[in-house]
Amino acid sequence: MQDIKIVGTASYHPSSVVTNQQLSLLMDTSDEWIKTRTGIKQRYISHGENTSDLAVEVGRRLLKATGISVSDIDLIIVATMSPDAYTPSTAAIVQGKLGATQAAAFDVSAACTGFIYALTTAEMMLKSSSYKNAMVIGAEVLSKLIDWHDRSTAVLFGDGAGGVLLKKVETTEPLILAHCLNTYGNLANKIIAGGTNVDPTFPRKVTTLTPFEMQGRDVYRFATHEVPRSIITATSKAKISLGDIDHFLLHQANERIIKQIAKKLQLPLTKFPLNIMKYGNTAAASEPILLAECIANGLVKQGDLIALSGFGGGLSTGTIILRY
Amino acid sequence: MQDIKIVGTASYHPSSVVTNQQLSLLMDTSDEWIKTRTGIKQRYISHGENTSDLAVEVGRRLLKATGISVSDIDLIIVATMSPDAYTPSTAAIVQGKLGATQAAAFDVSAACTGFIYALTTAEMMLKSSSYKNAMVIGAEVLSKLIDWHDRSTAVLFGDGAGGVLLKKVETTEPLILAHCLNTYGNLANKIIAGGTNVDPTFPRKVTTLTPFEMQGRDVYRFATHEVPRSIITATSKAKISLGDIDHFLLHQANERIIKQIAKKLQLPLTKFPLNIMKYGNTAAASEPILLAECIANGLVKQGDLIALSGFGGGLSTGTIILRY
Repeated sequence: MQDIKIVGTASYHPSSVVTNQQLSLLMDTSDEWIKTRTGIKQRYISHGENTSDLAVEVGRRLLKATGISVSDIDLIIVATMSPDAYTPSTAAIVQGKLGATQAAAFDVSAACTGFIYALTTAEMMLKSSSYKNAMVIGAEVLSKLIDWHDRSTAVLFGDGAGGVLLKKVETTEPLILAHCLNTYGNLANKIIAGGTNVDPTFPRKVTTLTPFEMQGRDVYRFATHEVPRSIITATSKAKISLGDIDHFLLHQANERIIKQIAKKLQLPLTKFPLNIMKYGNTAAASEPILLAECIANGLVKQGDLIALSGFGGGLSTGTIILRY
Repeated sequence: MQDIKIVGTASYHPSSVVTNQQLSLLMDTSDEWIKTRTGIKQRYISHGENTSDLAVEVGRRLLKATGISVSDIDLIIVATMSPDAYTPSTAAIVQGKLGATQAAAFDVSAACTGFIYALTTAEMMLKSSSYKNAMVIGAEVLSKLIDWHDRSTAVLFGDGAGGVLLKKVETTEPLILAHCLNTYGNLANKIIAGGTNVDPTFPRKVTTLTPFEMQGRDVYRFATHEVPRSIITATSKAKISLGDIDHFLLHQANERIIKQIAKKLQLPLTKFPLNIMKYGNTAAASEPILLAECIANGLVKQGDLIALSGFGGGLSTGTIILRY
């Protein structure tokens, strides 16, 4: 049978670290407060690199790691909620800078669940076309969207990028076992960032973007309720049990959310690797960075069964169960 | 066999017309200049409606036109380069306002080719999943991104939305015959809009967006060269000849570009319906608006063979050949 395999992973982040201590000089917060409530100790903040710069570096690393020729890339999807521009898409810039002339390229926007949506999209497109190789990159410079005086959101986010190279392969067992994508547009206003307003006057000025606004408690409730449901639904679709899954790689939004999800699923926290302490919430970049790190450090091994599960703006959730 | 059918089309535009004459009061231009060089006589400009407002109305009309229950919609993709926000996606807002609770929703960003990319994405996702019904909507409030003092771009664009309802059906003959998606990221800087800059200082201010910037001559050369190539490639993949195609529905960027493409393909201009005079360039909304109008006025009939072909920011091109 034919299925889609992750044949390479990579990540990249800006070099500049911003610690909780540094943030406490800008706003009424403290290292202790941030660590206790979120698990975050530091985040990387871009000092000039835009989203495509991070994504291009991930693309280069994916090509190097897999040895796949750039001319064999058929599709590049970038999941981002902080694109360089409305046009060109960040994916088009990546395509151009990598020289992936044979690849169709576009961006997918589904916030923190964006990587899961983009991975599912790429997988389904590979399955129902002649495309063989796809790059799926999650990349964010969320610091473009932060109000550095709003302590309720500024402490949460960071910049970074990660990605996977997907390949259509012959296999004797299924590799992508199930997905479950959900959107809760009735809760659209719970997380807003990069919003535009349409002034009724004419001619009007070019739009400015609104910074992050989040109803944190509602999002906590949403995530701890809907993410377990998403994982259970995907597990059931895959005809496996929760205990069969080796690793649950969850969107790194908040350590407390992840702990609560593990508890609800009655699973040991050791199955839920964490890197939020180092990166903060990097939205669509969070899961591919975590996956790349867990593979690099040997935690995730060939043949392991993984649940990738994202959640966030939309509001939305998404889970993919796959064999690495 | 199973294939994907367009079972409904709809369009919607803001009520306020802005004529060339009105623009000539704001900048050094004239009705004659604009009409001669672009074919545009007027455009609709939103006076307060945002992109999701236009898209929601298209969604309502699609449901009404097809009689499909909102709870049977599995997927909503909005193609846009002028989203309400970076998050929530415009598609999530549409999902919420329609009450399409079963639908996964996300935005696709590929500028003026966005509708073709989104249509292809939706089609492939329907084909390789249990999803049965998808809404694909192109929606733009490009007036958010216009510098009303820049006569080289301000006269070109308009606001609007259009969409299709796709359904997985049993059929005796193929309905989607071929696609051809290309991206030319090496030409990414030829059209830029909604661009962000990452100031190297920290903490920095929330980003403002840059207005449309376009290298018009290069885009003209690109479109008149690459769109015929895209159409010929798709025709060849579909194993038909150009003469078999009843209607060529091209992205309405500029009447002169479309005339030149018809000439290069040695086809009568009557096969290339135009509505740019009324709307201007509505980017991702342009093709579904044109398709909906051509079906409503009886030009496009059941069984007709159609080439939908988009081009623009990225730079990018995309052609789909389908039987309506």
